[in-house]
Amino acid sequence: MKIAVLKERAAGETRVAATPETVKKLAALGASLAVEEGAGEAAAIPDAAYAEAGAEVGPVAKVVADADMVMGVQAPDVAALSGAKSGAWVAATFDPFGQRERVEAYAKAGLEALSLEFMPRITRAQSMDVLSSQSNLAGYKAVIAAADQYGRAFPMMMTAAGTISAAKVFVMGVGVAGLQAIATTKRLGAQVSATDVRPETAEQIKSLGGKPVFAEGLEASGEGGYAAELTDEQKAAQADLVTKHIAKQDIVITTALIPGRAAPRLVSDAQIASMKQGSVIFDLAVAQGGNVEGSVPDQLVEKHGVTIMGFSNTPAHLPADASALFSRNLFNFLNAFWDKDAGKPVLDEEIGDAIRLTRGGEVVNPRLRAAS
Amino acid sequence: MKIAVLKERAAGETRVAATPETVKKLAALGASLAVEEGAGEAAAIPDAAYAEAGAEVGPVAKVVADADMVMGVQAPDVAALSGAKSGAWVAATFDPFGQRERVEAYAKAGLEALSLEFMPRITRAQSMDVLSSQSNLAGYKAVIAAADQYGRAFPMMMTAAGTISAAKVFVMGVGVAGLQAIATTKRLGAQVSATDVRPETAEQIKSLGGKPVFAEGLEASGEGGYAAELTDEQKAAQADLVTKHIAKQDIVITTALIPGRAAPRLVSDAQIASMKQGSVIFDLAVAQGGNVEGSVPDQLVEKHGVTIMGFSNTPAHLPADASALFSRNLFNFLNAFWDKDAGKPVLDEEIGDAIRLTRGGEVVNPRLRAAS
Repeated sequence: MKIAVLKERAAGETRVAATPETVKKLAALGASLAVEEGAGEAAAIPDAAYAEAGAEVGPVAKVVADADMVMGVQAPDVAALSGAKSGAWVAATFDPFGQRERVEAYAKAGLEALSLEFMPRITRAQSMDVLSSQSNLAGYKAVIAAADQYGRAFPMMMTAAGTISAAKVFVMGVGVAGLQAIATTKRLGAQVSATDVRPETAEQIKSLGGKPVFAEGLEASGEGGYAAELTDEQKAAQADLVTKHIAKQDIVITTALIPGRAAPRLVSDAQIASMKQGSVIFDLAVAQGGNVEGSVPDQLVEKHGVTIMGFSNTPAHLPADASALFSRNLFNFLNAFWDKDAGKPVLDEEIGDAIRLTRGGEVVNPRLRAAS
Repeated sequence: MKIAVLKERAAGETRVAATPETVKKLAALGASLAVEEGAGEAAAIPDAAYAEAGAEVGPVAKVVADADMVMGVQAPDVAALSGAKSGAWVAATFDPFGQRERVEAYAKAGLEALSLEFMPRITRAQSMDVLSSQSNLAGYKAVIAAADQYGRAFPMMMTAAGTISAAKVFVMGVGVAGLQAIATTKRLGAQVSATDVRPETAEQIKSLGGKPVFAEGLEASGEGGYAAELTDEQKAAQADLVTKHIAKQDIVITTALIPGRAAPRLVSDAQIASMKQGSVIFDLAVAQGGNVEGSVPDQLVEKHGVTIMGFSNTPAHLPADASALFSRNLFNFLNAFWDKDAGKPVLDEEIGDAIRLTRGGEVVNPRLRAAS
C-alpha cells in the first residue's frame, strides 16, 4: 500500500500530516511512504528527516502517482490527486459542512474521502481524534498569545517596588480547548474562572484550579460532547452573567463551537465596552464566525480600548507539536484497522461509516446527507 | 512643589513615569502634579484617571511651566524643559554612558539630572531601583514572547494521541531578569537550566526549580550585583560549555549586561547552527549590542532554522505593569527623602550623589567623570 503525504496548500497552514516518527511506524506496518518535497518545512521538519525515516521524497506528481491513500491536514484540491489510484482513500480534515462543493468533487473523482473531523467521540477512537488533539494545543496557544498581547504580567509578583496583582482570566466554553486554556492560565499564575452551558463541567473547572461561573438554569447539554445551541432565554441569562463577570476581567478566552453551524455569539460590543482599557479577548471561534462581536481572523481589533484577537487556524501557530499529534492520530487510526493479510487497513462500520464522506462516485455520509 | 509628568517621546516607549496611584500619593505628600495629555495612553491609563487622582492635565508647555521637578521614564530632550524652574530636578533614566551629549545638555541648561539607573544597589534603595523592577518584567516578557514564537508547547502534555515532551529552556545570566525568566519558564512547565559567571547563583537557580550549568573556574564576580566582563579564557570555557549544552536546547534566553559597556557575546553563529530547527533564542541584551551573534532589535532573524529575537525596549512590551512599578520606584524614592518642612525631598549623599549627574551647570557625577 502506497501512502502519499502532500505539502499543505491552504493559506496559513503550517502543519503536515506525517512526521518522521509516523513514517517509520507506518513503514513498519508494511506501507510504502512518499512525502512531497518541503512538506514538513513549516513544521521545522527537513526533507532529509523523512528520507532517513524511509520515505521517498519527491515532487507532488511522483508522490501521488499510484497512491492507495493520501494523507493531509486539510483535504487537498481534487486536481492535485489525479495520479492516485482509482478509489484511493484521502484521510484529512474536510470541513464537510463548510466545504460541501469539495466533497462533491471528491465523489465525482471517485475518491474515498475520510473526514477526520467526523471521528466518533467514543473511547476507542480518542487516540484518533484530531479535533481533540488540535483543540488542546489551540487552548494552550490562545493563552500564550493573549499573555503576549496583554500589557501586564499574568502572575502575581511580589517585588521590592510593591505587588503586581494577578491577571483575571475568564474562559468561556469548557471543552478540550477551554480545559487546556484553564490549565495553562493557572500554570502562569493568573486567577482563572470559567463557564459553559453544561453545569456538570463545574467539577472539571475546579479540578484545574478555576472558579466555575454558571447562570441559573443552564442545563443544555449537546450530543457527542459538544454544547448544543442555547435557547433565547438561556442566551439572555448567559449574556447577563457574562456582562457582570466580564466587566471585572482582564482577559477573556472564548472557545464555543457548534459542529456544522456558526459559532454562538457570547460577547457583545456592549459587554466589551464594560471592560477595562488594555484588556484582551481571544476568540478561538473566530474562523467559525466568532464568539465575540467584532472579532476578525488574524487581526488585532481594538474596541473600547480592548484588544480582540483570534487566529483563522490556531493549531497552525504550533506547527511542530500540532503536526506531531495530528500525525499520531492518523497513525493510530490506520494502525487500529490494519489488516496484515490485506496489507492495508480495513475499516469497521462504527468508525468507517462515520468518517467516510464519499465512495463509488457518491456522497455516502449519513450526517452530511441529512444536512443537505 | 510642582511635579511635571511628560508623555514619553522616544520611539517605542509605551511607559509613563506616574500612575493615578502615585499621583495620589505624591499629592498626599504635598506636591502638586501636572500630567501631559495622553501621557498614559500607551499604558492604558486615560487622562481622566489622572485628573480624578488630582493632577492637572494639559499640554506640555503648561505642564512644564514653573515645574520644580520633571519625572520621566526616559529623560526628555532639554528643549522640552525650557519652561521649568531654574535648577529643576529631572528624575528619569538617562543612559548616561550611552547618551553623554544629553547629559552635557542638561548641565548647560542648568538642570539637575537624577539618573535612576545609578541608584546604588543597597538595601534601603531596593524599592527605588528601576533597573530591578524593569528587569524583572523583562525576564517574564522574554519567556512569554519566546513561548509565543516557538512552534511547540512549553509543558509536557499527556494526551490521548501520546505525550508531548516539555521544552528545554536555557537561561544565560542569572540576575533579576534571568531569575524571573527561570521562574516563568518553570511555571509554564518547561525544563529549565541556567548559568552565570557567578557560581554562587547555583543555589538560586535550584531554588526556582532550574538546573545550574557551570563551567569550571568561572568565579568572576562584578561590582554592584552585576557580572564583570570575563577574561578571554573564561569566555572560551563558557563558550565550550554553551556549545555542548545549547545543542540540546529548544529555547535560549540571554540576559547578560555589563553597565556602561557593550553586552558580552555569549552565543556564536556556530553555536546557533548546532541547535535544532525551530529553536528560539531571545536576546534580552540586544539593545546593548547583543549577547547573541546576529541578533537585531525588534526583528525576527532566522539563522540555521533558529529564530533569534529581542526587543529594543522589553519592559515597554508590558506598559501597564512596567509603568506601575517604575512609578512606584519614583514615589518610593521621593517619599524616602521627603522633608515636610521644606515641602520637597532633600537627598542625602549616599543616594543623592550616586544618581545626580548634573548640577550648577556642570557634570558632577563621579562615575561619569571617571568614565570620560
